[in-house]
Amino acid sequence: MTIEVFGAYDHLIFKDMRNTQVVVIDTLRATSVMITALKNGCRQVIPAIEIDEAMRRKRSMPDQNVLLGGERDAVKIPGFDLGNSPKEYKRETVEGKVLVITTTNGTAALRRAIGAKRVLIGAMNNVSAVAKKLAQDPGPTSIICAGTRGKFSLDDIYTAGCIIARLKEYVPEPVLDDLGYTSEMLYQRYRDNWRDLVGNAVHYNVLIKSGFAGDIDYCMQEDTADIVPEWTDGIVR
Amino acid sequence: MTIEVFGAYDHLIFKDMRNTQVVVIDTLRATSVMITALKNGCRQVIPAIEIDEAMRRKRSMPDQNVLLGGERDAVKIPGFDLGNSPKEYKRETVEGKVLVITTTNGTAALRRAIGAKRVLIGAMNNVSAVAKKLAQDPGPTSIICAGTRGKFSLDDIYTAGCIIARLKEYVPEPVLDDLGYTSEMLYQRYRDNWRDLVGNAVHYNVLIKSGFAGDIDYCMQEDTADIVPEWTDGIVR
Repeated sequence: MTIEVFGAYDHLIFKDMRNTQVVVIDTLRATSVMITALKNGCRQVIPAIEIDEAMRRKRSMPDQNVLLGGERDAVKIPGFDLGNSPKEYKRETVEGKVLVITTTNGTAALRRAIGAKRVLIGAMNNVSAVAKKLAQDPGPTSIICAGTRGKFSLDDIYTAGCIIARLKEYVPEPVLDDLGYTSEMLYQRYRDNWRDLVGNAVHYNVLIKSGFAGDIDYCMQEDTADIVPEWTDGIVR
Repeated sequence: MTIEVFGAYDHLIFKDMRNTQVVVIDTLRATSVMITALKNGCRQVIPAIEIDEAMRRKRSMPDQNVLLGGERDAVKIPGFDLGNSPKEYKRETVEGKVLVITTTNGTAALRRAIGAKRVLIGAMNNVSAVAKKLAQDPGPTSIICAGTRGKFSLDDIYTAGCIIARLKEYVPEPVLDDLGYTSEMLYQRYRDNWRDLVGNAVHYNVLIKSGFAGDIDYCMQEDTADIVPEWTDGIVR
């Protein structure tokens, strides 16, 4: 099993995804939000790149109960129902509904995985379930970190490393690329004190300054969800 | 002083370089070759992207003593004078000559830095000299790793970390991005046993298998050269 890690979705330009299974990570916070919403009974999540597109998608489903969620500059979009804090996506809010979501990096990262054999949604909240599912397919595997505006972000790298560590319980000797090796090494070194690593991330500090410290603690918890959402035909469920 | 590190030159697509000083790194082996050639009296180095372009550049200088150097798949190009082993670039071979060079990643990385305020050539062989020169300009600084076919490569990341560590002797608290932080942390952890880190690089193992172990040892030496070549108007000198 070969595992490649991409530090940001823009780094995929040369990658042919056709025979590859993919997991997309945006731990802080888009994929954590999707996992939380689906765990709490949301029927499906539709990722949109632009705000306009999100609104159009909602209007195209007048007979559905659609929520608009997402952020720009970490903050809720004016006129939207929900922001990008997983804690907003409670069962009483999302159960039985469709969520259309647009975020700065996470939703674009998902779109970039188009053409892959299958696309799983990962975050710290479901690392063990993701690893178990990836292990069912011994073929080429890519872990795509959303990153932050085209750059490597330590929260995603830590999550990628954690998935690789879990995956080794099933596949003892995967062939890793340099970033895969580095991710796992960082995870193993900081697993008992993740804040000493992730606390240095630029995006972590943006979230802290914006008042989202609670979200970080929530998103960095391992294995609070036993589901692995999958993106098929533009819909995550 | 802000310092950004890019893991591969393709990762620069969103970066406006105009107000930025840049150091380009391809420790294994293109920038090490350039530094060695210039240290040994080569007059100038002209990086070319394609083999055809390199041959054309040589033909356009019939009155000069021009050497053709470079590699594809780590091996010397048929009809070229020299490969990509720094040890080939001895004083008796290169002194007073012009070198036109084309390599898989390093020369393309240089071209991608076009438009930057200034472009320095770095490798482990000249880290301290590079840091000293960068410290003269407190403005935005980017360290561009050539990477390997669009991906992060541990040999370059280790070099970037070493440059940051040296730079801190002049600028105690630079503002680092996530990859800058990670690079320096890896350098500090592995500085006394670099092979435990860099030995995991895919590219390292390609070179070992191709019989270039001696080149790796040469290229990983710190501060064997006290020069900082600069790329101006398409020429490194």
